[in-house]
Amino acid sequence: MTTATMLPTQPAELRRIIRAGEFAGVTSGLANGHVQANLAVLPRDLAFDFLLFCQRNPQPCPLLEVIEPGFVEPTFTAPGADISTDVPAYRIYENGEMVAELESVAEVWRDDLVSFLLGCSFSFEAALADCGIPLRHQEARSNVPMYITNIPTRPAGMFSGPMVVSMRPIPQAQIVRAVQVTSRFPDTHGAPIHIGDPDAIGIRDINAPEFGEAVEIRPGETPVFWACGVTPQAVALNCKPPLMITHAPGKMFITDRRDSDYAVI
Amino acid sequence: MTTATMLPTQPAELRRIIRAGEFAGVTSGLANGHVQANLAVLPRDLAFDFLLFCQRNPQPCPLLEVIEPGFVEPTFTAPGADISTDVPAYRIYENGEMVAELESVAEVWRDDLVSFLLGCSFSFEAALADCGIPLRHQEARSNVPMYITNIPTRPAGMFSGPMVVSMRPIPQAQIVRAVQVTSRFPDTHGAPIHIGDPDAIGIRDINAPEFGEAVEIRPGETPVFWACGVTPQAVALNCKPPLMITHAPGKMFITDRRDSDYAVI
Repeated sequence: MTTATMLPTQPAELRRIIRAGEFAGVTSGLANGHVQANLAVLPRDLAFDFLLFCQRNPQPCPLLEVIEPGFVEPTFTAPGADISTDVPAYRIYENGEMVAELESVAEVWRDDLVSFLLGCSFSFEAALADCGIPLRHQEARSNVPMYITNIPTRPAGMFSGPMVVSMRPIPQAQIVRAVQVTSRFPDTHGAPIHIGDPDAIGIRDINAPEFGEAVEIRPGETPVFWACGVTPQAVALNCKPPLMITHAPGKMFITDRRDSDYAVI
Repeated sequence: MTTATMLPTQPAELRRIIRAGEFAGVTSGLANGHVQANLAVLPRDLAFDFLLFCQRNPQPCPLLEVIEPGFVEPTFTAPGADISTDVPAYRIYENGEMVAELESVAEVWRDDLVSFLLGCSFSFEAALADCGIPLRHQEARSNVPMYITNIPTRPAGMFSGPMVVSMRPIPQAQIVRAVQVTSRFPDTHGAPIHIGDPDAIGIRDINAPEFGEAVEIRPGETPVFWACGVTPQAVALNCKPPLMITHAPGKMFITDRRDSDYAVI
């Protein structure tokens, strides 16, 4: 197994190594400057409603690409790639229950599967870091804390449920800059959903996130909340589809596109 | 028939008058500050591909709302409205040919119809005007000139074809500002597609637009081109769907949402 420090920095090379089964780790920090994507795969008969759900909830569900039934190549974000083999690890869910974690889903692929690639917070975190805004969970080498809120998503067909958010403590003098910087990237979650009091969005205990790990909020820092890409997976699993495939947590699909390609200004 | 000068300024009141058959004119300048929408209605079996086409081509096809089959109320952009009666005039196309222009389509509505509301240039034109950037076609009281380019859209299913753009001559000193101002509104076509030489995007004769009317380009002005909401209609009609309903040119659906709701910064 290849270790992260020996890995190439180009997306296509990285995907080749992942496809060959030589790397199956988390992708945070790899192919710096390139957009990484959340993956959600659903059968065709659920695809219109899920696409509509993403269209109605662009902050938690920023669509980068949809691969039509019968195809595995993301022709727009990673020409030549194969979405059934080029993610380090996949999770298979049947009727909302995880039944397997695999390093390739080529063997279980079906012609009626539609793949959704969604923007991820790695892109805006790079932009925050470029501005000198500290990221506590990266300093602590832990996964960002995520919370289920009382903010409803806009339903589509069978898909509905609360928004999941990620939280980063930001020094008060840098909050305005954090809003400005992330506003440039609406396709990778964009501006914050909420600044300050966790209780205002239904978070009872900031030290007990539903996903990821809690981080310290120091004096002079304010918790800032962004819509999280866990939302569409949580919402889709809620409706217990007969089959759904996702990436394993932190093990994302690495595209050829650059973060800067998605800046609206 | 009510004349434009007697009309109320609130969207819900305007829609009531339109629904009652008391106004069937162009909506430019009405309900100032509120978003107006292009309408495209297609049968359910084409809806996934058309939704995907819009997702892949957000500049010409900025989706504001999709109303699911069996429903006529735009619950997000205009709660209480009826999309089958609240547009001043509709065009009905069968197999790509216009067969009727009606003031209501309630009589011909079907349970399998999916309605797509798309952002329109009226929103960013208001933002340009607020910055003191002149709009030649408004001064001339004519429809904005629109051109078929050689810029391909990204296909989805049966939908494909060239991008249509609108053109506004901008004084050279104001071009940067025009880019900045319209970049704030990606859901209503956003930043320009092209600045300058029409030939570079396949426009042979700037004085012969395919739609709308030519406008004068004065010394010191540069033609600036934005993606145009005519694109999805042109692309959809190209594929000759058995039934498609659109708004009549210039007679848009008036939503309750404000232009400022759609500013990303």
